[in-house]
Amino acid sequence: MGGLENDATYNQNSVPSTNKTSLSPDSIINLDQGDPTLFEPYWRKMGDKCTLVIGGCDLMSYFSDIGNICWFLQPQLGDAIKGLHRAVGNAVTDGRHFVVGTGSTQLFMAAIYALSSPSASHPVSLVAAAPYYSGYKDQAEFLRSGLYKWEGDARTFDKDGPYIEVVTSPNNPDGAIREAVVNLGEGKLVYDLAYYWPQYTPITHPLDHDIMLFTFSKCTGHAGSRIGWALVKDRELARKMTEYMQISSIGVSKESQLRAAKILGVLSEGCQNLGTAASENFFEYSHRIMRERWESLQNVVKNSKIFSLPKFPQDFCNFTGKYTDSNPGDAPFAWLHSKEDIDWESLLREHKIIGRSGEKFGADQKYVRISMFSPPEAFTLFLERLSAIIDITNGNVAGGEESSVIKCS
Amino acid sequence: MGGLENDATYNQNSVPSTNKTSLSPDSIINLDQGDPTLFEPYWRKMGDKCTLVIGGCDLMSYFSDIGNICWFLQPQLGDAIKGLHRAVGNAVTDGRHFVVGTGSTQLFMAAIYALSSPSASHPVSLVAAAPYYSGYKDQAEFLRSGLYKWEGDARTFDKDGPYIEVVTSPNNPDGAIREAVVNLGEGKLVYDLAYYWPQYTPITHPLDHDIMLFTFSKCTGHAGSRIGWALVKDRELARKMTEYMQISSIGVSKESQLRAAKILGVLSEGCQNLGTAASENFFEYSHRIMRERWESLQNVVKNSKIFSLPKFPQDFCNFTGKYTDSNPGDAPFAWLHSKEDIDWESLLREHKIIGRSGEKFGADQKYVRISMFSPPEAFTLFLERLSAIIDITNGNVAGGEESSVIKCS
Repeated sequence: MGGLENDATYNQNSVPSTNKTSLSPDSIINLDQGDPTLFEPYWRKMGDKCTLVIGGCDLMSYFSDIGNICWFLQPQLGDAIKGLHRAVGNAVTDGRHFVVGTGSTQLFMAAIYALSSPSASHPVSLVAAAPYYSGYKDQAEFLRSGLYKWEGDARTFDKDGPYIEVVTSPNNPDGAIREAVVNLGEGKLVYDLAYYWPQYTPITHPLDHDIMLFTFSKCTGHAGSRIGWALVKDRELARKMTEYMQISSIGVSKESQLRAAKILGVLSEGCQNLGTAASENFFEYSHRIMRERWESLQNVVKNSKIFSLPKFPQDFCNFTGKYTDSNPGDAPFAWLHSKEDIDWESLLREHKIIGRSGEKFGADQKYVRISMFSPPEAFTLFLERLSAIIDITNGNVAGGEESSVIKCS
Repeated sequence: MGGLENDATYNQNSVPSTNKTSLSPDSIINLDQGDPTLFEPYWRKMGDKCTLVIGGCDLMSYFSDIGNICWFLQPQLGDAIKGLHRAVGNAVTDGRHFVVGTGSTQLFMAAIYALSSPSASHPVSLVAAAPYYSGYKDQAEFLRSGLYKWEGDARTFDKDGPYIEVVTSPNNPDGAIREAVVNLGEGKLVYDLAYYWPQYTPITHPLDHDIMLFTFSKCTGHAGSRIGWALVKDRELARKMTEYMQISSIGVSKESQLRAAKILGVLSEGCQNLGTAASENFFEYSHRIMRERWESLQNVVKNSKIFSLPKFPQDFCNFTGKYTDSNPGDAPFAWLHSKEDIDWESLLREHKIIGRSGEKFGADQKYVRISMFSPPEAFTLFLERLSAIIDITNGNVAGGEESSVIKCS
């Protein structure tokens, strides 16, 4: 799901580092949010190929496809989604119901609504294995719904009765490939597959779960369009998810749907030229960018005596037809860990870097999540500052002197 | 707010009467929803003036205006909204915070979230004077929120403590101009002004309430774009409404925002030529269409011995500079009443017309709401069938014979 996340305490002063921001040595670098504008140059290079023209009298009706369960889904978008999954090989679409949402954020809300039961005596438990995406908790709790209840870490969940487990794979924040962990009788699963695309992880096989969520934001970088989609096996669940969208927003922007259809179509076409002399495919391009960033980051972090990054297993990607190196990674976020008692978020803040503390993900302050999506200038400045932090912390650890580093409280 | 409404029991077989539907004498005419496609010809006539072109690399970021409380509001849309309210004179915008939503539907949810208190021991009561828009109840109840509780008709509300009253003006379903009715100390008001535009009602003065909701759908007929906006006096309320949008959908489609900005801009420009020999302004055009429909409807209903339509008071419209006739009306829905015990919805269904029963609006079965937005062919067929129903009911009433008409249960 989204990398901006649903930080209910979003701070107006915490200006995101965007491509439009000009940075100085004193600038605060905001790597809290995962705004994927780093892919913008690729789409610029595509020129008019992805340009959308909408006439003043187009798309006026609430309705898109009155014969479809999801009656507000533009058929072109449904076709483009199907074509893309077929080209990439990351999800089974045959016989699935497609539900479009205002980002996968709205679809997550729709899924937990659809999986809950209004006639139940207790709210259904909602869990995710820590470290989990920080937005789930906010989304589950902010309206104090009596339908579902956030119960935190799936690994320690042991209540009887129905539950919903969200499986985020690759995981946000740490990029790990995941399966369900609770595995009890009355469980329902929601797979959040926002990052199951070739630039972030090897595509090992087409996934085939009951409810799978994807988002345009993280697939191509078009976060501003707010388009997500769900592939749903069960007709009644798809109907209830559609109902959620109907009651909460009477459907989803048709302009965004048409634009997503166009861009996903161009993306699918590009997949046919993979590995040929033709122009670089978007997934090749974006994977290269992610890799280069991870290499630079690993080169900095390896000098630290106390900081580390997750290790990613080597795997064969069916899409690229290649084995991925196990190191460096290509995940959308860096999940930095300190083996010493350091409050990462505060330490970074001292050095004018905003990351998100592990505490928000059900982990602890010794972890911090850093977005790998920042504009190039911000990423470079981040690496410089991280190097300086590493020099300080290495010195402190070696000398055992009074540390200027903020310890965990 | 929206005319499709949030009918949680939306029936897939209940195909809406759209411009694309070809009707036969056996066709079911669906006048349940208020899909405003009847204004399409106007926008078609405008040619390229309202055409929007979006490049593949445009609008990629989550962010639109990082210095604004509503950080996902495209500045062009804020400017267009301000310009339009100034041109029409229906709402005060100076010093107001603008919050954009996925239709005014999402903004209504945001408003009741913002006006509730997570620390309160009881949910805040939510009321609206009957007959009220049928969607409010669904929106307030579907997630079983502990923050707010639907308490129905404002006229009979007498609980102590905080409450929220939604004032819909002109009212959906009956077109009445409204003020708050509860008027107790701890009340907060949300004004749903979806229909406070010159085609539906005289614009008597610029409204100046704490929270005012508008929607692109009903202003210009572009329902598919899902764009609504709120004008909010209090900064903290605007922040909380923005927070709602952030948690539930991380903002609002930027494509739709840009399109709304363009079309609202063209609309405002057109207002400068009002009443001149220049091309017909959209509000003149749409008002003329609504009037013509009401005249035809009144001409049919006046033959009935038992059916009636609401009376609209004469008023001076500052926008057109004219007094409106008190009869016929120009409201978006016809709120048909029967003085006999007739179950309107069932009666219409027998004659292949789908309306929405008064029961859904906190009234009774002797009322039914009919959308005045249907495509021309559907509206003509509706009038023919209504004439036939009136012939039958007149006969029955006159003769006192066994009625084929379905009585209220």
